[in-house]
Amino acid sequence: MATIKDVEVLNCEYGKNTIKFLRLHREGKKHFVKEVEVCTHLRLTSAQEYLEGNNSLVIPTDTIKNTVLALAKKNGIPTLEQFAIDICKYFMTFCQVAYVKTYVQEVPWQRLHENGVPHVHSFICVPDGIRFCEAEQCRNGPLVVFAGIKDLKLMKTTQSGFEGFYKNEYTTLPERHDRILCGELFCKWSYGECKDFDFDCIWYMNKIRECILEAFAGPPDCGEYSPSYQKTVNSIQMLVLSKVSQVIEVILNNTFYNVVDMKNLGLTNDKEVSKCSKHNLRGLFRNTQPKSIAAVLHRVVKASKLSHPAPVKASPYL
Amino acid sequence: MATIKDVEVLNCEYGKNTIKFLRLHREGKKHFVKEVEVCTHLRLTSAQEYLEGNNSLVIPTDTIKNTVLALAKKNGIPTLEQFAIDICKYFMTFCQVAYVKTYVQEVPWQRLHENGVPHVHSFICVPDGIRFCEAEQCRNGPLVVFAGIKDLKLMKTTQSGFEGFYKNEYTTLPERHDRILCGELFCKWSYGECKDFDFDCIWYMNKIRECILEAFAGPPDCGEYSPSYQKTVNSIQMLVLSKVSQVIEVILNNTFYNVVDMKNLGLTNDKEVSKCSKHNLRGLFRNTQPKSIAAVLHRVVKASKLSHPAPVKASPYL
Amino acid sequence: MATIKDVEVLNCEYGKNTIKFLRLHREGKKHFVKEVEVCTHLRLTSAQEYLEGNNSLVIPTDTIKNTVLALAKKNGIPTLEQFAIDICKYFMTFCQVAYVKTYVQEVPWQRLHENGVPHVHSFICVPDGIRFCEAEQCRNGPLVVFAGIKDLKLMKTTQSGFEGFYKNEYTTLPERHDRILCGELFCKWSYGECKDFDFDCIWYMNKIRECILEAFAGPPDCGEYSPSYQKTVNSIQMLVLSKVSQVIEVILNNTFYNVVDMKNLGLTNDKEVSKCSKHNLRGLFRNTQPKSIAAVLHRVVKASKLSHPAPVKASPYL
Amino acid sequence: MATIKDVEVLNCEYGKNTIKFLRLHREGKKHFVKEVEVCTHLRLTSAQEYLEGNNSLVIPTDTIKNTVLALAKKNGIPTLEQFAIDICKYFMTFCQVAYVKTYVQEVPWQRLHENGVPHVHSFICVPDGIRFCEAEQCRNGPLVVFAGIKDLKLMKTTQSGFEGFYKNEYTTLPERHDRILCGELFCKWSYGECKDFDFDCIWYMNKIRECILEAFAGPPDCGEYSPSYQKTVNSIQMLVLSKVSQVIEVILNNTFYNVVDMKNLGLTNDKEVSKCSKHNLRGLFRNTQPKSIAAVLHRVVKASKLSHPAPVKASPYL
Repeated sequence: MATIKDVEVLNCEYGKNTIKFLRLHREGKKHFVKEVEVCTHLRLTSAQEYLEGNNSLVIPTDTIKNTVLALAKKNGIPTLEQFAIDICKYFMTFCQVAYVKTYVQEVPWQRLHENGVPHVHSFICVPDGIRFCEAEQCRNGPLVVFAGIKDLKLMKTTQSGFEGFYKNEYTTLPERHDRILCGELFCKWSYGECKDFDFDCIWYMNKIRECILEAFAGPPDCGEYSPSYQKTVNSIQMLVLSKVSQVIEVILNNTFYNVVDMKNLGLTNDKEVSKCSKHNLRGLFRNTQPKSIAAVLHRVVKASKLSHPAPVKASPYL
Repeated sequence: MATIKDVEVLNCEYGKNTIKFLRLHREGKKHFVKEVEVCTHLRLTSAQEYLEGNNSLVIPTDTIKNTVLALAKKNGIPTLEQFAIDICKYFMTFCQVAYVKTYVQEVPWQRLHENGVPHVHSFICVPDGIRFCEAEQCRNGPLVVFAGIKDLKLMKTTQSGFEGFYKNEYTTLPERHDRILCGELFCKWSYGECKDFDFDCIWYMNKIRECILEAFAGPPDCGEYSPSYQKTVNSIQMLVLSKVSQVIEVILNNTFYNVVDMKNLGLTNDKEVSKCSKHNLRGLFRNTQPKSIAAVLHRVVKASKLSHPAPVKASPYL
Repeated sequence: MATIKDVEVLNCEYGKNTIKFLRLHREGKKHFVKEVEVCTHLRLTSAQEYLEGNNSLVIPTDTIKNTVLALAKKNGIPTLEQFAIDICKYFMTFCQVAYVKTYVQEVPWQRLHENGVPHVHSFICVPDGIRFCEAEQCRNGPLVVFAGIKDLKLMKTTQSGFEGFYKNEYTTLPERHDRILCGELFCKWSYGECKDFDFDCIWYMNKIRECILEAFAGPPDCGEYSPSYQKTVNSIQMLVLSKVSQVIEVILNNTFYNVVDMKNLGLTNDKEVSKCSKHNLRGLFRNTQPKSIAAVLHRVVKASKLSHPAPVKASPYL
Repeated sequence: MATIKDVEVLNCEYGKNTIKFLRLHREGKKHFVKEVEVCTHLRLTSAQEYLEGNNSLVIPTDTIKNTVLALAKKNGIPTLEQFAIDICKYFMTFCQVAYVKTYVQEVPWQRLHENGVPHVHSFICVPDGIRFCEAEQCRNGPLVVFAGIKDLKLMKTTQSGFEGFYKNEYTTLPERHDRILCGELFCKWSYGECKDFDFDCIWYMNKIRECILEAFAGPPDCGEYSPSYQKTVNSIQMLVLSKVSQVIEVILNNTFYNVVDMKNLGLTNDKEVSKCSKHNLRGLFRNTQPKSIAAVLHRVVKASKLSHPAPVKASPYL
């Protein structure tokens, strides 16, 4: 059997994956809710619990959960990002913690309205895109904050094609200049080092969501032609980049629609009836992203790169 | 081994469960989409394919799928209900069909708006409640149509309690007069026999969705006290019943929120932090509904009961 | 708005849907586990909580959960069926309960073996078919018990065809006498009125699972030709019926495999490469079963029918 | 808006995520099946399709799918690893491909046996652990192969504890020296550079699966005490490392079982009734793994590190 001397520990990380709770805030009769799912992972300065079974430095995942709940009780959740920052800062106060990472996503509760009047304490879940954020910090490194939106399902029924692609013996796809473009969007950007941002203000003032929708759809009266999923991803990135951030990752899990061939049924189908050919778009690569078309852009700003946290030493294998 | 003479066939049904497709309708540059999932099941007059392996009366599920697509191409999908009716009527033209049932649900695509301007061909998926309908017909019986809404997730953060319930040795639940009420609503009603209804008109004019939300939430400035999930289910039924239908089935898959006990953490939690105790609300009973609190009401109208289709002879076991 | 006088309550049922727990039994160093998921639903003699908000007869779902756990602690889980019977009998001791139904399914933990030696306390989850049971009782009716197996995924790569079916303008399916037959099997039978059965003994002695597999596959050296999914369903039923029961419900959620057309790729595909055309077999009908091919058989035994519990008065609509 | 000059492309990858098919191999009357799910992703030498909408180098995802099917037809699937290698090698023949990665996982069909006799053409799905592999290659780099097993659910009901951990104001977890240890295991190792391995031979001869089970469970008559999930992960790694590989990643998605407190029910629960506290272990971090306890080990072999492919230039942010 291999001994400990033969090996090098590349990563030894643990955490609590889904701490889900609702934080209620009351102002008189008016109620505000934030229901969130939080993941918090730690890496310790020593791997002695893992190599030797010595637990003395281990902060139990149960304590991680209690901490997240206690911080929510004490500080509230002013914004997802601020809450993720609070969690990271708290765990950095333990000297055995070498790295902390926190992910927070929000259950999309919206206030109910009756005939335009907002209800004081009733809400409906409207999952047309999920806001999330991440914060991470290495000891002696800056606290870096990301934000994003995911599970945004969009479709345009024309102004999309795919032509002039590479062809070989196994190419059967026809060239098309008028097809449906449909996908589930994931978009993530960086705020760089944590500052005293008003994160919700950036979100609402800069209209990031609106900007994504506009980049996808083009002008309301005519749209804008997309020559590929890839180009649409890039258009979204460039427009978002003009608003908020240095780094943009955009993934478009495309859903193809094939026009149903109805010749055998004695019918002419002028692209009126299409079938979704999405089988199962869960990505199966564990170490990369569940992506169909994914691209990561980086704004060229020299100084910013120097101050980033050193990531875990990655194996070239992984 | 048992022989065929020893047994009685109680049901022998087959069909295609998920025929999913998108129907595009164009009016000049303006596009309209309906993406639907259709299930169609048949019962034949003879069970010879099942008992004897004689397939001569069997309409293959592949043909069922082709038929649904062809009808969508030819007739469009003016309303979900009309489309379900079209399918039932079509299959009733085959003399070997004793019974047909069709379910249609809609993918909730909504037209995108940019600064209030509707986009001509771009859409976003907004799953805040799914509209569906069912149509069914026995040979020599009327065609009956149901409609409904499901997957509507609602929450009120006060004006809900549960008190005065039955207690015994295993009761540990405390009485509460101020709790969160949250659940996923399923609501289904009958239009009775198929007539020349404008189903979308009934839906929009009678504001059924708004009516459900109002019955759940109460007035916007103060809400209305709910003494139990059961009573809320009944309130929704009574209000919907005043609008559209004879029969109302309402199911509220409740999601309990428990206030987190923070005494051990040295904190006082004034119902500000709650955890969802929903484990897995998939119902496991196959022959009933996935229900937590379910109730079915029937408006007392004598004549209407006589003309309904005879359902399949149900085993008392099933 | 409709008033209570205008309506008739057809059903008002509630319960707890997923009470999941593990029951550990020790015999010296040897451990035995049963992890189960339990659903228990009740119907009360009065619907006053629902109509009037009077909770005095309501046994809270929290109490239902506590009761199930307490019974597991006190009685253990000798068999799934006996445990379901215990639960039903317990709730029938409350005079306000008109009907109780319990479903129990088992997490398929199997004892680990190392080089053929069984491990005293280690287990592996092997989900190749899930055993379940149901018990139900109406006041003044007998306690009736069902058992079954579900989620059994089976495939045969030949000895299956589908020919001689009905054809019309929308038929494009070719006749096939050699195709893959694959599906997920659900099989449920009745033990009739509860007696002092040793349910596990019936299961193991009668080799019900083996019997299902054999009816599906045919003899190991050559198989047996299946002319349709329907006939295979019937074969399974007839063989199981010879072993254990009065009523057999069998559902085969078929998964079609289509031979991939490789002519455009310059290749001849002798049924070597097939693609699964299963899109999404979740049934969407809520009030029937998620079925593709479903059939229910009843053994003709006159006396037995008379003693069965009267089911809830079903609306012909539902 | 940002222009292309302002940005640097960090990654621009695309591919087909779930190419699922069944490959049938016949030897006389005896049939052999391999049903697999394949993901194949490419990175091109230029990002012109993404930046400029020029598709001339893009191999469509539809062609990727056709290629995978064609290779399966031509070469068969002798082992998952060999098939992944075939795919990578094929795509490396295109000069515009800078990087290719392929993941293959197997649907766990097992041959049916009737009274110990293997069936010639019938199979049952037994998902007690899923075998998978990955192969990847950068242009001018070696082809590297990984293999693994996932979704292996294991439990031991004693010989597990967690004591002596770090405590602070938010610690409420009691120390325990006898608890249930349960989790879903993911285990992945590297074969290093692709050689003429007989991968199935390594798998079966080295008994990797048996080795994992043994490291988890300990000797069959008494087990072996685990002081933490972390230590168990390490034990599995060290034992597997002695068999097959240089790098081992093991993730144990732990499922906690809490002993139910029955004092309020008037009962003493000697750890006989436990409830699973797993809420939702889907990891939410997209850019790391869905992990609870994860660790990566690297065998210290100097030469091997030099020849590995250079991974994509990773942003320190991502």
